[in-house]
Amino acid sequence: MTGPAGTGRLSLNQATVKSLSLREAADLCARHDIPAIGLWRDRVAEVGADQAAAIVTAAGLHVSSLCRGGFFTHADPAARAAALADNRAAIEDAARLQADTLCLVSGGLAPGSKDLGQARRMIADAIGELVPHAQRHGVRLGIEALHPMFCADRCAISRLADAVDLALLFPADAVGVVIDTYHVWWDAGLAAGIARAAGRIASYQLCDWVLPLPADMLLGRGHLGDGHIDFPPISAQVRAAGYTGYAEVEIFSQAVWDAPADQTAATVRDRYERLAGDGG
Amino acid sequence: MTGPAGTGRLSLNQATVKSLSLREAADLCARHDIPAIGLWRDRVAEVGADQAAAIVTAAGLHVSSLCRGGFFTHADPAARAAALADNRAAIEDAARLQADTLCLVSGGLAPGSKDLGQARRMIADAIGELVPHAQRHGVRLGIEALHPMFCADRCAISRLADAVDLALLFPADAVGVVIDTYHVWWDAGLAAGIARAAGRIASYQLCDWVLPLPADMLLGRGHLGDGHIDFPPISAQVRAAGYTGYAEVEIFSQAVWDAPADQTAATVRDRYERLAGDGG
Repeated sequence: MTGPAGTGRLSLNQATVKSLSLREAADLCARHDIPAIGLWRDRVAEVGADQAAAIVTAAGLHVSSLCRGGFFTHADPAARAAALADNRAAIEDAARLQADTLCLVSGGLAPGSKDLGQARRMIADAIGELVPHAQRHGVRLGIEALHPMFCADRCAISRLADAVDLALLFPADAVGVVIDTYHVWWDAGLAAGIARAAGRIASYQLCDWVLPLPADMLLGRGHLGDGHIDFPPISAQVRAAGYTGYAEVEIFSQAVWDAPADQTAATVRDRYERLAGDGG
Repeated sequence: MTGPAGTGRLSLNQATVKSLSLREAADLCARHDIPAIGLWRDRVAEVGADQAAAIVTAAGLHVSSLCRGGFFTHADPAARAAALADNRAAIEDAARLQADTLCLVSGGLAPGSKDLGQARRMIADAIGELVPHAQRHGVRLGIEALHPMFCADRCAISRLADAVDLALLFPADAVGVVIDTYHVWWDAGLAAGIARAAGRIASYQLCDWVLPLPADMLLGRGHLGDGHIDFPPISAQVRAAGYTGYAEVEIFSQAVWDAPADQTAATVRDRYERLAGDGG
């Protein structure tokens, strides 16, 4: 923990400063005493996983997550095999980076299908196939529930409770869940889902729900405090469930991307400390 | 049941043909052998509830729902009192129209608040206050779960299971639930929620989930079959739960609104018969 009191568990997901290279993002974290970083595979690929690991180590950073694996829902055998191969490569990268988890966005309905049950079976099957590879590399897969508005096209796992049900089918060291406030805040069953996720929380991600949603509904997110989510009780529930890992701020927002990165990092740290800090 | 075989339970919600007056919408239903209509309060108000009742009776139509009451989440006592008064007037209109239910869109977070629990308590309290008035007028309130993307600003009841939990606090003749496919299709707990709603289903509404969502996310809906929802199993579950009422097609979509009303009505009937008809 290299950060100041109250932010020792803060991590910056590099998607929040999307225009920066991995090295620039790592330098930004170091400059702002943010002790961990969440990485994306495209930025890692630009330098290679070994070099990426060297960069974050040199900056004194821990890698709280690698984003992302998943997209498991394919009826076509070749497409399914390609997805699994890509996920195995992602697991190997996560191992090189010593990432706390590989985040999985599981995929929506299979192409041309309206069968949600089938999509969910495909997801469970694919994770089952990846678990031995993950265990061999000491990587924990993190199943992320995405907001129900992404159910058709991105992720058929829509509630934390469903992610937990799925994770419980596998060994706890190999499969956990990712709790992202943006995706799960609305759920009347959230507190119960978090409690039931005890021992399975692989990542805790933070981002606010801002209205109105923009035309691209992937980007309707904001800095903590700019939207409608009540962070302190959620953070307290996550800690009460025994999670001692990093809280990763991940914001997809054109306005945030347009801001200077140093301003963004300062805001991330300030808001985290006020609304979701380690004491949360 | 005046419709042809297979569409005897079809109802057209007048929001689907938003530009038509109540009389024009009633004539459209009669012209297309659609035996029931779902009404909106603004169109009813244009002629008054008694005249509206006369129009639909003359057209041989049953009123499957009146849309809508709700918006119960106010910390300000005057705003709360105004909402309750408006809901009492809506109950009286629903009685005059002999509507099967008054649909409730319960309201999101109270202004300035981030407390979802508070919003949900406000909703339960307000419904409790309205129940005696509903019972005196023989009107059944229908609690509608809205898609979680509307949780902050329109409806803090986001899953059918939560709507059922709330309805069960009150007598079954006074409070039921509205099942709208558009809002609940994504939920892995949907079948369980429908089964548990047996005896409480006040309305069944149909509309497809079409991507990409438009800038105004209220309007991302489409004709049955144009999107991602698998209607036959949902309709079968609703019937299996004992629901024998109308299936109301309600589509908010600029493209549908821009189409000629007769074309829309013909498409509504055709798609209903193929995908969600009485045999469903």
